[in-house]
Amino acid sequence: MSVTPFEFARAHNERFITELEQFLRIPSISTLSEYAEDVSRAAKWLENHLQAIGLQNVAVYSTDGHPIVYGEWCGVPEAPTLLFYGHYDVQPVDPLDQWHSPPFEPVVQEGKIFARGATDDKGQVFLVLKAIEAWLATKGALPCNVKLLLEGEEEIGSPNLPDFLRANTERLSCDAVLICDTAMAAEDVPSLVYGLRGLAYLELSVYGPRRDLHSGSYGGAVVNPANALAGIIAALHDEQGRVAVPGFYDDVVPLSEEERALLRMLPFDEEAFRTELGVDALGGEKGYTVVERIGARPTLDVNGMWSGFIGEGAKTVLPAVAHAKISMRLVPNQRADHIAHLVAQRIEQLAPTGVRVQVRLLHGADPVIIDRRSFAMEAAAQALEATFGRPAVWQREGGSIPVVTEFQRIFGVPVVLMGFGLHTDGAHSPNEHFHLKNFSRGIEAVVRFFAELSQRAALYAP
Amino acid sequence: MSVTPFEFARAHNERFITELEQFLRIPSISTLSEYAEDVSRAAKWLENHLQAIGLQNVAVYSTDGHPIVYGEWCGVPEAPTLLFYGHYDVQPVDPLDQWHSPPFEPVVQEGKIFARGATDDKGQVFLVLKAIEAWLATKGALPCNVKLLLEGEEEIGSPNLPDFLRANTERLSCDAVLICDTAMAAEDVPSLVYGLRGLAYLELSVYGPRRDLHSGSYGGAVVNPANALAGIIAALHDEQGRVAVPGFYDDVVPLSEEERALLRMLPFDEEAFRTELGVDALGGEKGYTVVERIGARPTLDVNGMWSGFIGEGAKTVLPAVAHAKISMRLVPNQRADHIAHLVAQRIEQLAPTGVRVQVRLLHGADPVIIDRRSFAMEAAAQALEATFGRPAVWQREGGSIPVVTEFQRIFGVPVVLMGFGLHTDGAHSPNEHFHLKNFSRGIEAVVRFFAELSQRAALYAP
Repeated sequence: MSVTPFEFARAHNERFITELEQFLRIPSISTLSEYAEDVSRAAKWLENHLQAIGLQNVAVYSTDGHPIVYGEWCGVPEAPTLLFYGHYDVQPVDPLDQWHSPPFEPVVQEGKIFARGATDDKGQVFLVLKAIEAWLATKGALPCNVKLLLEGEEEIGSPNLPDFLRANTERLSCDAVLICDTAMAAEDVPSLVYGLRGLAYLELSVYGPRRDLHSGSYGGAVVNPANALAGIIAALHDEQGRVAVPGFYDDVVPLSEEERALLRMLPFDEEAFRTELGVDALGGEKGYTVVERIGARPTLDVNGMWSGFIGEGAKTVLPAVAHAKISMRLVPNQRADHIAHLVAQRIEQLAPTGVRVQVRLLHGADPVIIDRRSFAMEAAAQALEATFGRPAVWQREGGSIPVVTEFQRIFGVPVVLMGFGLHTDGAHSPNEHFHLKNFSRGIEAVVRFFAELSQRAALYAP
Repeated sequence: MSVTPFEFARAHNERFITELEQFLRIPSISTLSEYAEDVSRAAKWLENHLQAIGLQNVAVYSTDGHPIVYGEWCGVPEAPTLLFYGHYDVQPVDPLDQWHSPPFEPVVQEGKIFARGATDDKGQVFLVLKAIEAWLATKGALPCNVKLLLEGEEEIGSPNLPDFLRANTERLSCDAVLICDTAMAAEDVPSLVYGLRGLAYLELSVYGPRRDLHSGSYGGAVVNPANALAGIIAALHDEQGRVAVPGFYDDVVPLSEEERALLRMLPFDEEAFRTELGVDALGGEKGYTVVERIGARPTLDVNGMWSGFIGEGAKTVLPAVAHAKISMRLVPNQRADHIAHLVAQRIEQLAPTGVRVQVRLLHGADPVIIDRRSFAMEAAAQALEATFGRPAVWQREGGSIPVVTEFQRIFGVPVVLMGFGLHTDGAHSPNEHFHLKNFSRGIEAVVRFFAELSQRAALYAP
């Protein structure tokens, strides 16, 4: 009697982890140009791996930025076609000194694998590859057709993906899209995300005197760009924790009572959340719960800020320029371009005379709401319930996956956001990790999802 | 007939510059620990040079920090004794990319010598050494006794100098102190400084969550330390450009009408000052002229600020911590310790719940007012007028020379602040330089000062 895909996955678990470690060793940081060759190397590694597990038409496509890796298995023309999207690029690793082990030397400890990209998104991409392998190695076929689209620019806003999608609509045509790049609501709680926040990311520079000045000889007579920057940033919030930019909330769809009830059902322990972060008090907009603030309300945050002398000791300098990276998380129906424009306009107004400001939009993504009742979502819910032994919960996630809007627009098919990470995995932070338990359950859930999708498509067929 | 000291100085001008270049090549940055050996090397270089020009009892004294170099010539017991104080340490060089030539590879261009330390203070120390050499080489003697005290920690607040002064009061006993570490009011305008601002320099850290967080997964629910830091800094000034810290102005001695009149006599072109800085408008406290704001009013400025992701591109992170270096320039009768305490207290009050602040005092110096009518000041005024062909102007400088207070307290003798720099020399900035014209005139003025001091002491003798 032949083995099942589940048995295969369990039997090869150790090898899977060894392979994942190879993938994690490649420092594919997309935002830093000095890592461009490593990003390409990761694409090449994936290409080889897709071929090795039996996918067809495997190719690496060049773009104006980092390459896109493609592969497919389309052996059941009568069954639905699933497009899986994932990304193999990762975030930068700083502050490096806060990592307990080097970010690109994976370490397994207490059931977790530690490395940059472990949960976001290499680990989650890899579990889908292993689910495919489990089917092909045991049955010689998948229950549905699968196309894989793996990009290297998600962490920088997918600048080249939309063009690629539009140029390849036929090749990529599909009945549903799967993305595994989200977190579960809590440990052991299978979760489906039906909302994602958007993002508008700005870089702001405040220019003052043409050169750094001696703070003794000039202090008191010039507008200090660092002080001016602080003033601008401070004025972007009001006392209620709301973003103080005219028009910012105009397009925000208020939370319905139904949604508020749904979100209250999520297993969320505010006190545990606060304690884990090590803070005396949480923050945010008055009148909303923490879950609502993260999932369903827009924000404005400084992501980085620098000016003047930042070395050891004291340098009595008035800086000539001050910079900040500021981003807004957006919710339906805010639009990234419009919000970026409003905030830039407000920053210009807030700049005192004596300095000059420059605002650049680094990237933007519109917020997303997904139909919770599509056949693909039902298939996913069923696969999760069978795997975890309990029903999936619905959540709105605070993060952004810019390409989801594009999939909705271009293909008009249901999107499933079925992630196996945890909020405590440290995505974008030092000591990022992925629970190996969730890696295995992810493989199992995706193995089931392929089958459920096929059956359910038949049920829904005309 | 033997040559005069003036003729000697002119004849050896080229060699003097070559020697100064050697001195400037040593990167004696006192605030960065990786340069500690270079600071020692600069001390050793000075020791050799002091011996070479004929000084006696030359020695390098160790301290708990960087060494102190001493030398003297005391061949005229009946004449007054002048203690010259200068420093051989320099400021850091960042932003390095704004230098047109490497900061420690001196370049002479259009009559200026470019290098870190050219004007602050190596160039000005060196012109005094050359004035001494000019006397000793031509006359075999100086008209007064001279003691030289050259330290390597001025740019970090002279932490070890006061102890050294107190331990060596006898050796250092003197009738007047000369310091050449200030700027002239304008090109070709000989100047004497009778007031210096004090300094209180703080480092502020704002701590939030225990690690950097994903701005999507957490944004909106935690207090962002970078936003909180901006809010704190912004709240430290009011709309009138005044420092918004209770008690900050309590001890400030108001400018008298006589002083305001004196300061108005300074050749200061506000429009040229603004244009040279490349700004649309100047800033500062309402109700005061630019000269008053710089010389006679206290300030609060950010000298450096850093938080989160400061690399290229976009990283969607909520920083765990934000830092700023903030310093206050002080005027009589503010005290550095007291002001640091008031500002730290205010910062604590301004910190929102959800973050924790830490304030460290990096260094402090009390402000100084000097008697404009001492015999040493008169000698200096006379030497300057003879050298420049026009009377010296009186100014209050915005910078601090922490040790001046110590000299006044410990020795109770007149201090002369006779500098040959220009505000446009770029002290503490990229492309620091010193006009060779002022280097030569400085030598000439100091040569004269030695003689004037001797004569005037006789006049004033009981």
